Amino acid sequence: MTIKRILIVSGTHGNEINPIWAVKQLNREENSLSHGVEYEYIIGNPVAYEKGCRYIDVDLNRSFKEIENYDQHSNNFYETNRANFLVDEFGIDGSKPCQIAIDLHTTTANMGTSIVLYGRRFKDFCLAALLQNKFGLPIYLHEKDNAQTGFLVEAWPCGLVIEIGAVAQNFYDSNIINRFLIILRSLREEIDKLKKNLIELPKELVVHVHQGSIDYPRDEKGNIDGLIHPQRINQDWKLIKRGDPLFLDSQGLIHEYGGDELVWPVFIGEVAYKEKKIAMSYTKKEVIFSNNQWVYEFESL
Amino acid sequence: MTIKRILIVSGTHGNEINPIWAVKQLNREENSLSHGVEYEYIIGNPVAYEKGCRYIDVDLNRSFKEIENYDQHSNNFYETNRANFLVDEFGIDGSKPCQIAIDLHTTTANMGTSIVLYGRRFKDFCLAALLQNKFGLPIYLHEKDNAQTGFLVEAWPCGLVIEIGAVAQNFYDSNIINRFLIILRSLREEIDKLKKNLIELPKELVVHVHQGSIDYPRDEKGNIDGLIHPQRINQDWKLIKRGDPLFLDSQGLIHEYGGDELVWPVFIGEVAYKEKKIAMSYTKKEVIFSNNQWVYEFESL
Repeated sequence: MTIKRILIVSGTHGNEINPIWAVKQLNREENSLSHGVEYEYIIGNPVAYEKGCRYIDVDLNRSFKEIENYDQHSNNFYETNRANFLVDEFGIDGSKPCQIAIDLHTTTANMGTSIVLYGRRFKDFCLAALLQNKFGLPIYLHEKDNAQTGFLVEAWPCGLVIEIGAVAQNFYDSNIINRFLIILRSLREEIDKLKKNLIELPKELVVHVHQGSIDYPRDEKGNIDGLIHPQRINQDWKLIKRGDPLFLDSQGLIHEYGGDELVWPVFIGEVAYKEKKIAMSYTKKEVIFSNNQWVYEFESL
Repeated sequence: MTIKRILIVSGTHGNEINPIWAVKQLNREENSLSHGVEYEYIIGNPVAYEKGCRYIDVDLNRSFKEIENYDQHSNNFYETNRANFLVDEFGIDGSKPCQIAIDLHTTTANMGTSIVLYGRRFKDFCLAALLQNKFGLPIYLHEKDNAQTGFLVEAWPCGLVIEIGAVAQNFYDSNIINRFLIILRSLREEIDKLKKNLIELPKELVVHVHQGSIDYPRDEKGNIDGLIHPQRINQDWKLIKRGDPLFLDSQGLIHEYGGDELVWPVFIGEVAYKEKKIAMSYTKKEVIFSNNQWVYEFESL
């Protein structure tokens, strides 16, 4: 394995502060060099972090796009420039090239400790399978969503998001911090094993594949007119079927799931997604059998 | 009793959205006129609500000051102008004069359903005693704090804050909404009883009197370097004594309460108070015996 440097990003969203604390603590406790692999810890959006908000101009974690896909005015956006800086500095062709990027996020939804993958890259599958095997973590496989592109980890040859919740924005929670510490330490252990060719890939990878997102009920002015139903709130990763309640509007009406297919909702009621008109996303469960090709590709990083 | 109009304000902080929902629901269910008393429901800071933030320029709930106490540039602040508008419109000498103002807030701290009073006004004591008697609500009596002035309800002859938590900013929680509905309906019932001279004032009012606030531990750059200790988080209204843990810093050191006096901390870890350099406030418990003068003054409103 030729991996030399791994980028660990916290605070890609400035109001997701628990991973920033976890990394700070880790940095004091552990050497940044381990078995010949160097760990680069960086705050993704330091200005937003300082201001306690998700972003300044636009969502940094939707700003890692090819130049031709930029908005007209995006050159003036802080986050566009920050994304470029991060790639120039730590990208695979950057001045301190990192082969893997791990992006640490929190959510106000009750997702537990979970992994998000973007597309079906074998290198990501390899790393995700090792972490899932260790902890049984649920994995959200985000793909085929044209409304949501430009994620940070997509700009690296291998990378995944660690997403932990429920925790409020800007609220330090020592349980959440501990969960990040556990994952980050395990990640280092798994990378160390990979360096020593001690890989034990599990037989399969279980993923929840993105199917689409739904918005809240809205009134005639476009304002949200529906709470996540009390039976649905905090029930991320739990199967729903036709007729299950989704929302409760201000007139007391229950809005039900009307689809024919069984789905597993995730990011239920995530506060930051209101502006994206997402009340929750639907997923389907899929089992992917492991393939040695995953390891070969990972080792060739 | 000459009370003709009562002002109910939600969204004084734009990211405290649950009372806004509760009022919306109430408005559909109940007549705004009850026993000759008219209820005026208004969103305190509609622009901040639309943007999902606490405020635009400055904290609206610190902007109800005498003109001579304004900052130099405050005329340009949205909230200064909004405070003036609210007083001009609904103040006791306004175009739609309200004798009482009830300001609805949420907190990320685990305060439960509580009341906040500003100073020792007998009219406020009367109303607070009735609500406390009904529900056993804890009351935070905020006084003698020069760093925190200009609260909305102080600009009315009688008024109090209903403060409910823990709930995250911008997060709808149907339990929290229900708690607001219960309080608002009870308030109307109590006012109706007062109108019919059916007042039964309890013997005493139990208050937690503000003693001061403490900041987080900070590093050499002034950044917060301490979590609320796991044994202290969510323990609002619970007595602490010397040696009890307050914070856990990033080096793992425990910062303890070092005072000689027993205190009851409140607003522990409130996210919005980080910018005010408040990690929690200390209070002392005090029992105030009821006085018929409270009722006389209330009736003369």
